[in-house]
Amino acid sequence: MNNRRDFFKLAGCGLMAAGFTSLKAASIIETSLAKSETKELYKLGMAGYSLKEFNIDQSISMLQRLQIKFLSIKDFHLPLDSTKEKIDEVMGKFSAAGITVYAAGVIYMKTQPDVDRAFEYVKKMGIPMFIGVPSYDLISYTEKKVKEYNIKIAIHNHGPEDALYPSPEDVNSRIKDLDSRMGFCIDIGHTRRTGMDPSEALIKYGPRIYDLHVKDVDKIGKEGKTIEIGRGIIDFPRFIKTLREINYEGKASFEFEKDMKDPLPGLAESIGFYKGVMASVK
Amino acid sequence: MNNRRDFFKLAGCGLMAAGFTSLKAASIIETSLAKSETKELYKLGMAGYSLKEFNIDQSISMLQRLQIKFLSIKDFHLPLDSTKEKIDEVMGKFSAAGITVYAAGVIYMKTQPDVDRAFEYVKKMGIPMFIGVPSYDLISYTEKKVKEYNIKIAIHNHGPEDALYPSPEDVNSRIKDLDSRMGFCIDIGHTRRTGMDPSEALIKYGPRIYDLHVKDVDKIGKEGKTIEIGRGIIDFPRFIKTLREINYEGKASFEFEKDMKDPLPGLAESIGFYKGVMASVK
Repeated sequence: MNNRRDFFKLAGCGLMAAGFTSLKAASIIETSLAKSETKELYKLGMAGYSLKEFNIDQSISMLQRLQIKFLSIKDFHLPLDSTKEKIDEVMGKFSAAGITVYAAGVIYMKTQPDVDRAFEYVKKMGIPMFIGVPSYDLISYTEKKVKEYNIKIAIHNHGPEDALYPSPEDVNSRIKDLDSRMGFCIDIGHTRRTGMDPSEALIKYGPRIYDLHVKDVDKIGKEGKTIEIGRGIIDFPRFIKTLREINYEGKASFEFEKDMKDPLPGLAESIGFYKGVMASVK
Repeated sequence: MNNRRDFFKLAGCGLMAAGFTSLKAASIIETSLAKSETKELYKLGMAGYSLKEFNIDQSISMLQRLQIKFLSIKDFHLPLDSTKEKIDEVMGKFSAAGITVYAAGVIYMKTQPDVDRAFEYVKKMGIPMFIGVPSYDLISYTEKKVKEYNIKIAIHNHGPEDALYPSPEDVNSRIKDLDSRMGFCIDIGHTRRTGMDPSEALIKYGPRIYDLHVKDVDKIGKEGKTIEIGRGIIDFPRFIKTLREINYEGKASFEFEKDMKDPLPGLAESIGFYKGVMASVK
């Protein structure tokens, strides 16, 4: 996915064929590049947890209505001990509806068999990455599996009350000297609740961020709760600008933990707000 | 509604009380003003037609969920021949829920008794303006009533297939030499369907625009349909910048004519997108 290179290739051919002078062509290329560089390299997705109260058919219908085409699947839609046949069936169902299951998780791992099972599950899915939370004493074993399977793990931070990984900094301190396929799923709501601006996390850990859980929160601290994007305290114009600056190429997946039994209006408002900012910031 | 004057008044008192030097105070006032000047002078509202399939209690619950506090009421929630008691009861119900009924409409008027009834209805509501569509032969009679009641009428444009007022320009040609209390409710979707960018209408008719119906449309022409804001063809960053430039002080009311039996997700996405643009454009 190299938009800049493809652009030069295409623009070059087209302009030469049209008989443009190279000076004119260069100036047009510059203008168009400046414009194309404000575009996102990443896609919007859904964190499976948002759909906890809904079966697969209901979830597909909601994703279609929201025009979201990428899903990080959660185990209530595809149990961790599923057979290859079951996995193919479920992924095929989403795929037939125009939805790509791009990751799995969050998968919590407290024992070696948990780690083994997670990597086998993700391997059977044929996807290159999952969102996971390994206990500290399993980090080294997880790294071994990352190398063996060539599957990335994006470790998820869960805010002030999390015993293992409250903030991206706690993930970093555990993985910074390990295989680079061990990276981050930055949950921007939980990050903000620790007091850190998620844009700072993007700048610090950019190349190693493999997934994002996108939401807003109403306040800093343990009492902070998920809220519709735009109603809370996260600086989304800065966040979206920073994603462009670091050339983020993963997914930005919405996670909405409010109104779990009727999340569609809140998800719609959140996605709308996010897209409104995307359409506006330079 | 003079935010700037109120700000100076408040800032002056507060800063003096706190013992600031006048130099420091001046610099702080300047910074805060620059910030406040990117704020909207208008409020977001709901065009009653969006709630056509819902009774008053359901409508209140939807408006509260969407955090919309201003309603332009439609006659299915308050019939045009309602008694003063009925009007007080319905307006009181909205008011108790934190929602202000700021206007009524769209009211179509084809006979003189229609005009008479509309002005009596609006007078009994105690509001200064309604959205209306008078037949051409009633425009002069309507102007007479505008003067008699001192109630404004915002004439609504309804797109290419409308026999009376397809575009704001058709409204303008009928009212430009009349009392200035005869003005516009610019329906930005119908305006865009005629080929006109609604921002152009704002620039042309600014001081005489008393209401807005805010929506997006998927294409120009008779076949164009309402769609979630952000999915269509209207340039919302420009629209919101232009509203600031003309210092619009009315309401911007969402109207969503898609999924009428289940409009909440589409309305939520639309409002989210609009707010995301508001939070981002300079």
